[in-house]
Amino acid sequence: MTTTLGGPGALMASETAEQPAVWRRLLAESGPSGASGVDVAAALVRRRSPRFVLLVARGTSDHAALYAKYLVEITLGLPAGLVSPSTFTAYGARPDLRDVLMIAVSQSGGSPDLLRTLEVAKAGGALTVSVTNNAGSALATTADAHVDVLAGAERAVAATKSYTAQLLALYLLLGGAPMSAAPLPDLGAGVLDRDAEIAALATRYRFAERMITTGRGYSYPTAREAALKLMETAYVSAQAFSGADLLHGPLALVEPRVPVLTVVSAGRGGEAFRPVLDALAERRADVLTVGSAAAGIRLPETSDALAPLLEILPFQLLARHVAVDRGGDPDAPRGLRKVTETL
Amino acid sequence: MTTTLGGPGALMASETAEQPAVWRRLLAESGPSGASGVDVAAALVRRRSPRFVLLVARGTSDHAALYAKYLVEITLGLPAGLVSPSTFTAYGARPDLRDVLMIAVSQSGGSPDLLRTLEVAKAGGALTVSVTNNAGSALATTADAHVDVLAGAERAVAATKSYTAQLLALYLLLGGAPMSAAPLPDLGAGVLDRDAEIAALATRYRFAERMITTGRGYSYPTAREAALKLMETAYVSAQAFSGADLLHGPLALVEPRVPVLTVVSAGRGGEAFRPVLDALAERRADVLTVGSAAAGIRLPETSDALAPLLEILPFQLLARHVAVDRGGDPDAPRGLRKVTETL
Repeated sequence: MTTTLGGPGALMASETAEQPAVWRRLLAESGPSGASGVDVAAALVRRRSPRFVLLVARGTSDHAALYAKYLVEITLGLPAGLVSPSTFTAYGARPDLRDVLMIAVSQSGGSPDLLRTLEVAKAGGALTVSVTNNAGSALATTADAHVDVLAGAERAVAATKSYTAQLLALYLLLGGAPMSAAPLPDLGAGVLDRDAEIAALATRYRFAERMITTGRGYSYPTAREAALKLMETAYVSAQAFSGADLLHGPLALVEPRVPVLTVVSAGRGGEAFRPVLDALAERRADVLTVGSAAAGIRLPETSDALAPLLEILPFQLLARHVAVDRGGDPDAPRGLRKVTETL
Repeated sequence: MTTTLGGPGALMASETAEQPAVWRRLLAESGPSGASGVDVAAALVRRRSPRFVLLVARGTSDHAALYAKYLVEITLGLPAGLVSPSTFTAYGARPDLRDVLMIAVSQSGGSPDLLRTLEVAKAGGALTVSVTNNAGSALATTADAHVDVLAGAERAVAATKSYTAQLLALYLLLGGAPMSAAPLPDLGAGVLDRDAEIAALATRYRFAERMITTGRGYSYPTAREAALKLMETAYVSAQAFSGADLLHGPLALVEPRVPVLTVVSAGRGGEAFRPVLDALAERRADVLTVGSAAAGIRLPETSDALAPLLEILPFQLLARHVAVDRGGDPDAPRGLRKVTETL
């Protein structure tokens, strides 16, 4: 189904399409005096040389945080953890956070629980950096340094451009060179041009009530975000598992009528994912592969760390098409608001 | 449906019923020369006073690790993270782990990826502790200290007694006094005595293909483990969300025909969970509450940190009853083996 101007999913469609331009802008503004502030923040992080990194986020931004956790562990060689805000808010934990870098990731920069967590971390001695899409937000002004992902106003409830902008901003913040990401906007535009192919594929899933998404390493956040997009726009009961976890228990769910959407990159995560594909084949699962080593939706090859920017694009398109095909409106999912406030 | 000797789910039923005895044994063996080794391991941890704690586990044990993460953050006041083994195995990350305590949790102690992760952590300077149900396992002998959860051989594919034994062992390892847990075995036996009540409840869910489980803080691992039990035994597409994350996106999945199983404790996590219950009521969700502040299956009140030992029991019973009612055999779920090997 084609998305028409002002029709169901039109907002999500236009924001999805903006992504290459958003990445270009962010890369252009990533220099020493760039508007993103990422260069200044990265220099501050290097100067303080933290020994541990904590990440805090919710929803889609939590998948960007999970991506950053892999980056920290693999490229910086530092231990990292994802913070449960409730430990700082509901339980009042006041940990000793000297030598710790805390990164808060939020599109709006307005979540009260993230703000409280950041404040507690700062009081506990942590260096704090926020990554948001709103330089005037409380998270932006409270952190020691702020990175603006410069995605422009995001109005669709289902986050798209802010997610990949967060990935790119975190990549740059954690030591990725802007040069290495320079080919991404053109590659992304090429993937988004395949909208008709994805729309055709979506018809296969029109009647699927349940789906499983899976990936490993850097591709695991992609599987998580793909599942969330399918849940919040098309109301598919989509469950994401890391490839290894899928083999522990949840594999029992896999049967021929539950489609499994897999992210298979050409890098090391993709290699480590092969046994999972074998196990799925053994169970006669209906498998779609997406990624640079995929037979299904093959994406251009990039470095392991940059692959997630491209990998999520087909899933954003797919979620919207499945939602619209089913008569839904991904721009107005039932029961959701753009900013969620929990304490 | 009653579980008969040797019938479907008989193994799982008998291992579920053993839990109070397992806890009693573990508590009895938690002193300075106790067979669990937890006292020695705890003393070693105190002596080395780590500044950061990493946890590594898979499947059910990963939910025990998540529980331990809350304990570390809240009661020890230290930052903590859950390790993705693939960063150490597939990507070959070699982080600097001085001042880090790494705890590996595994029923069998035989997962090659956990062993490899532990070895890398040790080489990187970490203090390593393993928590297993097999003192002769590779994980037990490789770690600087080992805690034996003393659950006895676990033969059912769906882990039950080893899970709560892990929770208790981690509680003791991370500073919980054995005395404070002394009432648990009797309280647990009281909960397990309500099997008929849970069996009656299970008939309500016989035709439910999808379920959502949710909880917050210490009760979030319970929600995760409850979902896994329902998936691996009854093939229910059960999805677990922390209460706060449920409000970000997945709330769109909630509708009257998708039962929501919630864990509501009397502690701070339970208080922070109230807005989630309100949002569920607004959407006319079919909600079951389980916990010390629940109107549904009310459990005895304990401290926040010990509540998860009791909370999971009704879900273990429920998963087995739903599985057997549907004609399945929770002792032999399709496609699963007791020990899962991934690298």
